[in-house]
Amino acid sequence: MQESNSTTLDTNAKSKPQTNTPTQFEFDIKTTDPNSKARLCTLQTPHGAIETPIFMPVGTHATVKGILPSQLEEIKAQIILANTYHLYLRPGADLIEQAGGLHAFMNWNHPILTDSGGFQFFSLSDTLKLDDEGVSFNSIVDGSKHYWTPEKNMHIQNQLGADIIMQLDQCTPYPCEKKDVAIAVDRSAAWAKRCRAAQQNPNQALFAIVQGGVFLDLRLASVEHLLKIDSQSNFEGFALGGYSVGEPHELMFESLELVTDHLPKDRPRYLMGVGNPSTLVKAVAAGIDMFDCVLPTRTARMGTAFTSDGKLNLRNARFTRDLTPLDPKCSCPTCLGYTRAYIRHLILSKEILASVLLSVHNLHFLLELMSEARQAIKENTYSNFMKEKQYLDIDM
Amino acid sequence: MQESNSTTLDTNAKSKPQTNTPTQFEFDIKTTDPNSKARLCTLQTPHGAIETPIFMPVGTHATVKGILPSQLEEIKAQIILANTYHLYLRPGADLIEQAGGLHAFMNWNHPILTDSGGFQFFSLSDTLKLDDEGVSFNSIVDGSKHYWTPEKNMHIQNQLGADIIMQLDQCTPYPCEKKDVAIAVDRSAAWAKRCRAAQQNPNQALFAIVQGGVFLDLRLASVEHLLKIDSQSNFEGFALGGYSVGEPHELMFESLELVTDHLPKDRPRYLMGVGNPSTLVKAVAAGIDMFDCVLPTRTARMGTAFTSDGKLNLRNARFTRDLTPLDPKCSCPTCLGYTRAYIRHLILSKEILASVLLSVHNLHFLLELMSEARQAIKENTYSNFMKEKQYLDIDM
Repeated sequence: MQESNSTTLDTNAKSKPQTNTPTQFEFDIKTTDPNSKARLCTLQTPHGAIETPIFMPVGTHATVKGILPSQLEEIKAQIILANTYHLYLRPGADLIEQAGGLHAFMNWNHPILTDSGGFQFFSLSDTLKLDDEGVSFNSIVDGSKHYWTPEKNMHIQNQLGADIIMQLDQCTPYPCEKKDVAIAVDRSAAWAKRCRAAQQNPNQALFAIVQGGVFLDLRLASVEHLLKIDSQSNFEGFALGGYSVGEPHELMFESLELVTDHLPKDRPRYLMGVGNPSTLVKAVAAGIDMFDCVLPTRTARMGTAFTSDGKLNLRNARFTRDLTPLDPKCSCPTCLGYTRAYIRHLILSKEILASVLLSVHNLHFLLELMSEARQAIKENTYSNFMKEKQYLDIDM
Repeated sequence: MQESNSTTLDTNAKSKPQTNTPTQFEFDIKTTDPNSKARLCTLQTPHGAIETPIFMPVGTHATVKGILPSQLEEIKAQIILANTYHLYLRPGADLIEQAGGLHAFMNWNHPILTDSGGFQFFSLSDTLKLDDEGVSFNSIVDGSKHYWTPEKNMHIQNQLGADIIMQLDQCTPYPCEKKDVAIAVDRSAAWAKRCRAAQQNPNQALFAIVQGGVFLDLRLASVEHLLKIDSQSNFEGFALGGYSVGEPHELMFESLELVTDHLPKDRPRYLMGVGNPSTLVKAVAAGIDMFDCVLPTRTARMGTAFTSDGKLNLRNARFTRDLTPLDPKCSCPTCLGYTRAYIRHLILSKEILASVLLSVHNLHFLLELMSEARQAIKENTYSNFMKEKQYLDIDM
């Protein structure tokens, strides 16, 4: 099982066409909101087009926890995310390549995005060693040692075969000393360049990642670095990394507004790891097109539902005889078929169907929120939409 | 939440029509196998007809573990079983009645059968006290004390609202002294009479349960008792209880053949708690129409699949790179979309989708086996069918 984790890059393993075909990833801006930076766009991928703004459910181990691909289709998920770090360690990128890539392996025939693992180094590895050349780390699965260069990371993501792949980057914590953030910005930019040079598969879009923490000048420096590389060889999109690591919401929005002002308009912008509903609504107004987060499914597994009345913890005794749906305004399969009392009963009985039903509902909540956002942009009513959604709890 | 567990029987809680309408549960024998007692029948219920021989998936807590009702429909489950003992303790029969009964509560609009709890007393309660009047026991949920008479048990099953309900009975272990089995036979018969008198809801069929362990004369005595009651007021079906408690297979079949010889032909026969594939095939030939068991879903949650090649433990390293379906001959949703390597990966990653995919497959395996059995009876080829299925492992 560990063959895939060898540090030797076998460049013969996969034929790599030498030319990019950017039309595979054509990005069209359909409508721009007159009162904000919100925009309605489409991004073509080899597995179909996605409409933005969009929320991407997270399937860390090549499964959105407890949910079948057919259920994701039912709630109109357009694209999902999988984690390179976890999949490289288990079951290994070689096996997934042999299975025909992630789409075939997990039976999801729509677009997929893989992250690079940069965030997992930051959040999972206490054995991390990082220098300009690459990163060494110990497996959280079996303690085995691994070494990744940006080139190796591209090769692994090429084996996984997602439609959109992310550059290897260095994410900084919050708070963090400015000099350390500056090092991460420079290193991430250098790695972006190496990833761009290494990634030549025309069926995969490469997104660069803007770092810089909450330091406005470092965020701008990061953008500047990436645009210089981009001027030589285009990235198909830009991501904003290093947020949602504990910094105050206001600081995130301050730098986020600045970054989107300086990113090229003609490429998608992806705010990584952010999933609370109120932030999504505001970040769309700041010009963000794509989001991912484990929040809706993790919240579901803890027995909590997102609703138009805020969060509901279904363990609460007040739901014992509550025969209404999780959210009477919701049209998801869970709300059409099941009551709060039933779901509470499943939670108390430790039945896994509780997680399934709540995950479907919470994912639908965010997918539907973004669907409404797209409709509002289309109808030039995004300002009203933001006012309507002001009830959304910032801590949801 | 505990109101429903009161020992006071509120006879005003539910209006009980005073007449039975047996046409609700019309039982038609369509074809009889010329070489065995196998038979193809239909049983009408208020939630639609079922075709027998049939396997009934078990949904102990009003959920077939990890599986949505829509998934059960997809694999053509016709009827499911739920457990009165568990549901009475949590969430309580009052709540389920208030929700509109089990069908509405769990969003399953096809037939349901509830057991009485007799088997759970035997298998779960170490605090059981049992006499001719009824049974007292402590809750496995919270230790609270409860007392059931046969009448109270009928009232609870009436609140749950299944299409088919079972008499309260006393199940004996194996081995067990003959005098103790004899007491259980007499008591179960006395309770059958009281259940029959108490159960007057025309929308619910009442099945009597034959006990007697492996003692042929006691099995016959049990049948005789029940037929005497039946001659006064019909049972809509007969069940064979007290099997699958550790006795040798041969002893079960010996007494099973005898019992079905003496049961009326014009009523369905249900062998309780038996689910291994080879036994199903043989028991159908002995004249059994209905089966239930947790085996397929419990086996699934342990990472094991039923296949036409026997049992496969997917944790086994030999499946690491096995990109074939669980069973290449199977047409279930799991086998159409997923590989052994993927399911093994989900098991090792502790992903609940592993249980979902394996449960769907194992349930489909038994449902399909019974579907093939019905087809064979229809075509007068059941003897051949039994020969074809001889590969099925007795211990599967």
